[in-house]
Amino acid sequence: MDLVNHQFQLAARPTGLPKPSDWLYAEEPVPEPGDGEVLVKILYLSLDPAMRGWMNDSRSYIAPVGIGEVMRALGAGRVIASKEPSLAVGDHVTGLLGVQEYAVASAKAVRKVDTQLAPLPVYLGALGMPGMTAYFGLLDVGAPAEGDTVVVSGAAGAVGGVVGQIAKLKGCRVVGIAGGPEKCRYVVEELGFDAAIDYKAEDVDAALREHCPDGIDVYFDNVGGEILDAALVHLARHARVVICGAISQYNATDGMKGPSNYMSLLVNHASMTGFVFSDYLERIPEAATDMAGWLAAGKLKAREDIAEGLEGFPDTLLRLFRGENTGKLVLKVADD
Amino acid sequence: MDLVNHQFQLAARPTGLPKPSDWLYAEEPVPEPGDGEVLVKILYLSLDPAMRGWMNDSRSYIAPVGIGEVMRALGAGRVIASKEPSLAVGDHVTGLLGVQEYAVASAKAVRKVDTQLAPLPVYLGALGMPGMTAYFGLLDVGAPAEGDTVVVSGAAGAVGGVVGQIAKLKGCRVVGIAGGPEKCRYVVEELGFDAAIDYKAEDVDAALREHCPDGIDVYFDNVGGEILDAALVHLARHARVVICGAISQYNATDGMKGPSNYMSLLVNHASMTGFVFSDYLERIPEAATDMAGWLAAGKLKAREDIAEGLEGFPDTLLRLFRGENTGKLVLKVADD
Repeated sequence: MDLVNHQFQLAARPTGLPKPSDWLYAEEPVPEPGDGEVLVKILYLSLDPAMRGWMNDSRSYIAPVGIGEVMRALGAGRVIASKEPSLAVGDHVTGLLGVQEYAVASAKAVRKVDTQLAPLPVYLGALGMPGMTAYFGLLDVGAPAEGDTVVVSGAAGAVGGVVGQIAKLKGCRVVGIAGGPEKCRYVVEELGFDAAIDYKAEDVDAALREHCPDGIDVYFDNVGGEILDAALVHLARHARVVICGAISQYNATDGMKGPSNYMSLLVNHASMTGFVFSDYLERIPEAATDMAGWLAAGKLKAREDIAEGLEGFPDTLLRLFRGENTGKLVLKVADD
Repeated sequence: MDLVNHQFQLAARPTGLPKPSDWLYAEEPVPEPGDGEVLVKILYLSLDPAMRGWMNDSRSYIAPVGIGEVMRALGAGRVIASKEPSLAVGDHVTGLLGVQEYAVASAKAVRKVDTQLAPLPVYLGALGMPGMTAYFGLLDVGAPAEGDTVVVSGAAGAVGGVVGQIAKLKGCRVVGIAGGPEKCRYVVEELGFDAAIDYKAEDVDAALREHCPDGIDVYFDNVGGEILDAALVHLARHARVVICGAISQYNATDGMKGPSNYMSLLVNHASMTGFVFSDYLERIPEAATDMAGWLAAGKLKAREDIAEGLEGFPDTLLRLFRGENTGKLVLKVADD
């Protein structure tokens, strides 16, 4: 083959928001797959808040991306060459394919998906890592009971929107926190949340008091910072705070802000528990079955916010941190 | 009766450390007990970090002390008049008696104790609120397994010293964090901890790395602030952080500092859970039986740090926040 592969490599570790010089847009020949490998033409890339953490040189649940390496990203694509019997040319797969046009991947590292069941981008959202994150974080870590009040921040995002919908399916009252009237309208009118708080326009503390008169039983946090602190003030007894992310803090240049109001955990005998998606790899089939069933039955709505063109990757990634996406932010790299 | 009662009333809500003008030392006649009440001559007062919180006008697990009210404190004394058949003159009792020489209390609000079994001050320490706090916080919230590494801050204090000893009884490796060589010697040589870290002289982060090579399974926190942040960095997977107090933050004038490293909860699938003693009132008999048995068998050591004289209350209370006490800080008010 004489295909050319364009890719974004990490050129420098960012301070604060990633800037153009932190990336190198490189052109390389497309390698041949070896035994047990496939060559994937990437069609969609998933843009996730966690990617910012992968760019830091610090101990975490996954090794940092090395300088000069292709930026790590989940992606979805089509197999165009295969040296592995279980995957055929034409199959659609997802996996950690990287910010590039073509990826050679071990067949074990990708997952074959059925585009008859759902469009390919959905496998990066509701049926992918964000959806599974929402499923396990809410149900396993948050453990909501019927009638509980569940509050979720980043409510119009890929994870938050699914969290709220699953909580509704489980009989909870659900309040979302999101930025701007359009997102708030979306989570209430389209996703069926009971209420939404626009943190850009409202006093979150006062709004939580109004919408959660009996306190918050489960707070699912995607944002950290001041919103986490506001939620802590309104915990009910034995509340569970689920720490899924802290997007407001990922680009802080003066260090992360911890939750000043954490003594609310003491007063309310409450807990704050963190998790990452990969803690639940063995239980993915369970979640996938439930989620696909809910999607098929129309009980769960998936929405993707699709940008186009690999070259726009650096700026599209920033849309996450500016809070500009509604639903799962995906970058379309090529036509199928 | 024509007894005179001296008492400390809260005169003003402190900013930062309580200062002399925040107190009013008042002289009042001793009231007569009514039906169902007893008159108690207070012999010992318990000085506890939680008292600082009771002085603030903020929502908590217990109402704040009102301006002009006698300062709330746990105490132990002798019944000198009784209008309640179940309590006789000469009985020793403990309860929320207040910072004063005499208290009229409902018989239901005090607990009769046996000074043949243990000296009266022990009922304010290992057999009182701090001991029970240690017991339930460690065993119920922290849930240590045999072989776990348990780290406790405020290790030479009334709660921390008991936490470490119970953890040893349960087969854990125990590392204490305390201020100064004398406290560190005390927790290792007298209380039997495996190691102690002097936070005033050592790099806590480096010392935790050295003493907890497999990470911390249970971190019992009494202090908050930088030490909590250091401990978070060294959590093992599925670690439990027990939030019992945050004495380093109670007198902060620029707001509480939250734990900046709380994302370690996410990376390690760890939890941070708070509690207060009063969550466990119904289970006190269970703890009291265990604790008294361990004390009698010499498996648990109780130590009180006894100051004398009611008039010295304001300054003696400050000893807690200066970290000057080793063991349970008690104020002796009168001879029996």
